[in-house]
Amino acid sequence: MSNTIALYPLSNFTFSTKEAQPEEDPSVAARLQRLQNNYEDFGMRRTVEGILVVHDHGHPHILMLQIANAFFKLPGDYLKPGEDELDGLKRRLDERLAPPKDQQFGSVHGADNEWEIGDCLAQWWRPNFETFMYPFIPAHITKPKECKKLFLVQMPERKVLAVPKNMKLLAIPLFELYDNAARYGPQLSAIPHLLSRYNFIYQ
Amino acid sequence: MSNTIALYPLSNFTFSTKEAQPEEDPSVAARLQRLQNNYEDFGMRRTVEGILVVHDHGHPHILMLQIANAFFKLPGDYLKPGEDELDGLKRRLDERLAPPKDQQFGSVHGADNEWEIGDCLAQWWRPNFETFMYPFIPAHITKPKECKKLFLVQMPERKVLAVPKNMKLLAIPLFELYDNAARYGPQLSAIPHLLSRYNFIYQ
Repeated sequence: MSNTIALYPLSNFTFSTKEAQPEEDPSVAARLQRLQNNYEDFGMRRTVEGILVVHDHGHPHILMLQIANAFFKLPGDYLKPGEDELDGLKRRLDERLAPPKDQQFGSVHGADNEWEIGDCLAQWWRPNFETFMYPFIPAHITKPKECKKLFLVQMPERKVLAVPKNMKLLAIPLFELYDNAARYGPQLSAIPHLLSRYNFIYQ
Repeated sequence: MSNTIALYPLSNFTFSTKEAQPEEDPSVAARLQRLQNNYEDFGMRRTVEGILVVHDHGHPHILMLQIANAFFKLPGDYLKPGEDELDGLKRRLDERLAPPKDQQFGSVHGADNEWEIGDCLAQWWRPNFETFMYPFIPAHITKPKECKKLFLVQMPERKVLAVPKNMKLLAIPLFELYDNAARYGPQLSAIPHLLSRYNFIYQ
């Protein structure tokens, strides 16, 4: 029954704000240069992102960050060299979305162990120090420069998420993502395909 | 380790031909009319198809049928009312691709139990008696008219496949399918996404 997933309504989740988290790199060129520098020191970059699913009126929605009213991304980021990918994803989700300590009223546990990470849903490969990625390792590529894994994150019944001030957290319905690479890019617009094998139970 | 799949080279597989298998319906309109008639008698149509993966020079390829030098489809078809989906998929794969009895030289087992069906990779839903399908149940649709499930079929080291004379069996590389809905349609062009979470071992 691992294909059955309980989804909770968007209205069960509480959103607060926290300090802004500026981009690490000032431009795409700078980002690719840093990728290349890090590749020379540590090898292939490993990136992990979470697909956080809730529902609104019985249709699945994905929680996505929007930056500067422009592009969308999933919560998550690259791992430290040697870091375990599930631990790293939890750390990155906390960095991005956990309430800061002084907002954690009444929380018994630390926030860092409250993420339930499910199946790996996709892998995207960057063959060169360029912007394009593919959902397979292209022929003749023996040393990809980055591998990004997307994981299903099973949202609990209720949760408080704190969103950096320079970002918005939006719940995007699957029907909006589907066949919409023009707006969301190839990675995000493929999420409906990645989730289609699950049967959702709308709580 | 269910994310690791062994792939065998295309050259390990032997292709023969068998009697033609004409389309059941003479037109799209007739097909949709029969769907509607059967819906009234038996309820939602359940369809199952197999994603048969091999490799050629270390890149995954999908075995697809091409009909009349025109459109492509996966092996598989609709189930009988009440039929188990895995049994039905094996039956449909046999119908389409198993060698007829007089070609089964030296086969110890019957052909029908030689298919190893893996994970369900996708579900496509037909909301109305129309041609379009979606990888989710659209909002406000409570009675979809068809559900099509795509299953990974783990190809053994070697196998003989017999292809109906009016069809070709082609091995299409993932890089050809990717981002190519114009040629392969939304369902087949999404296969690279569905497979991206697997790590393939090229035997």
